[in-house]
Amino acid sequence: MAHHIGNEHTSRFWSEHQNELIRRVCDLYPENFAPVCQLPQSPGAPIEGSVRELRRCVEEMGFIGCNVNPDPTGGYWTGPPLSDRAWWPLWETMCELDVPAMIHVSAACNPQFHTTGSHYLGADTTAFMQALSSGFMSDFPGLRWIIPHGGGAVPYHWGRFRGMAADQGWEFDALLEHIWFDTCVYHQPGIDLLLSVVPVENVLFASEMVGAVRGINPDTGRHYDDTKVYLDAVPLDEDDRGLVFEHNARRVFPRLELT
Amino acid sequence: MAHHIGNEHTSRFWSEHQNELIRRVCDLYPENFAPVCQLPQSPGAPIEGSVRELRRCVEEMGFIGCNVNPDPTGGYWTGPPLSDRAWWPLWETMCELDVPAMIHVSAACNPQFHTTGSHYLGADTTAFMQALSSGFMSDFPGLRWIIPHGGGAVPYHWGRFRGMAADQGWEFDALLEHIWFDTCVYHQPGIDLLLSVVPVENVLFASEMVGAVRGINPDTGRHYDDTKVYLDAVPLDEDDRGLVFEHNARRVFPRLELT
Repeated sequence: MAHHIGNEHTSRFWSEHQNELIRRVCDLYPENFAPVCQLPQSPGAPIEGSVRELRRCVEEMGFIGCNVNPDPTGGYWTGPPLSDRAWWPLWETMCELDVPAMIHVSAACNPQFHTTGSHYLGADTTAFMQALSSGFMSDFPGLRWIIPHGGGAVPYHWGRFRGMAADQGWEFDALLEHIWFDTCVYHQPGIDLLLSVVPVENVLFASEMVGAVRGINPDTGRHYDDTKVYLDAVPLDEDDRGLVFEHNARRVFPRLELT
Repeated sequence: MAHHIGNEHTSRFWSEHQNELIRRVCDLYPENFAPVCQLPQSPGAPIEGSVRELRRCVEEMGFIGCNVNPDPTGGYWTGPPLSDRAWWPLWETMCELDVPAMIHVSAACNPQFHTTGSHYLGADTTAFMQALSSGFMSDFPGLRWIIPHGGGAVPYHWGRFRGMAADQGWEFDALLEHIWFDTCVYHQPGIDLLLSVVPVENVLFASEMVGAVRGINPDTGRHYDDTKVYLDAVPLDEDDRGLVFEHNARRVFPRLELT
């Protein structure tokens, strides 16, 4: 992605090329992968190019979801928030096609931010907050977002967000009809927290290949990002394990059945 | 604060006025408050004005610490990161005067960010990451930062940060000679996580008056931001409770003894 590099034209051809490569990998390993596309976002570019590429990927190439970069400027945050009407053609098309979006920034080019250390986690929290404070998702029944890295700072501050929502009259529980958190949190206490506050219906199993950390935790002897180990240590019953590892994903990605 | 409003001149007189008011409140209620100053930061302004005001507050008015806004632009993040040499005169003066800084942004004026929902938490994580990835604090023995809101996203992603540090050869444990996290996390699982991963020597009790949330949690019947209730429910022995509620603060704010 790196949407801050080049321009709308570069981003279009780069995205088309990458998405065709993704399709090819999925054809080579159909038991391992299902295709999710990147979009040709670019700072200041209208969203219509992304709508067009999403439609091409889903309708012509069998993709089941997309990634949306909430900040194509790479850490300068000068575009419109996700609740702005500039984004609405994309949300409408996602609803029409019944595909979800992972809301995940790309590399930071602002020296204030470390890409995987602060930019990713800040963007996750920012996206959640935009949805919560604007309430715009209630206008898009069926719109589904996945917020990566276990939701950034959100589960750790669940009380803050619930409390702010109560103070302001924002719909907190209704938002959870639209938002899922993945499990890319690299230690046991973090995964424990995630599962203790977020409803199990809103947690999607994810692990890494390659993620932000490659090393082995000396305290456990396992890779930091081997998230399944942490999930296996959480006392979930079989039904809840089934939700986290399979059935939530099937609900979020209904086109998985078609591939 | 709201450093994005006005200019360097405005900020100077606003800060001086506020700091004199803080001194007056502390004189009126010496058993309740100890003075910590704001600094006359302004987007693009050199740090020397802040150094001057810090010196005035500490040397002439008995202040024991300061607040540093890592992003005086209010969410546009166009200034230098905290590791940049532009900041170093401030870090040097803090070391000389033996005062810590709370690293806390002010209001966001970028519509991408909600002040207390995403800007605060993102800035906390950003500041920690700047210190970790640059290693600049090792050049300032005795430099002490407090990161508010329980460290933003940091404790929830403790494994990520520890793992990145191990991969990159960054000094993680040495950083904890310089950084403390407060306890402004508004639910029990968050406080439990904080105390389970961050060394108890690095946690400073804090509560709110007025914070991001004013309401009462219907599940507990207590104010969301009454953080002492959560801390009282954590099984800490008396020594550790003494650290969190008093002795860590005395180490971080040695000038407290002088007031």
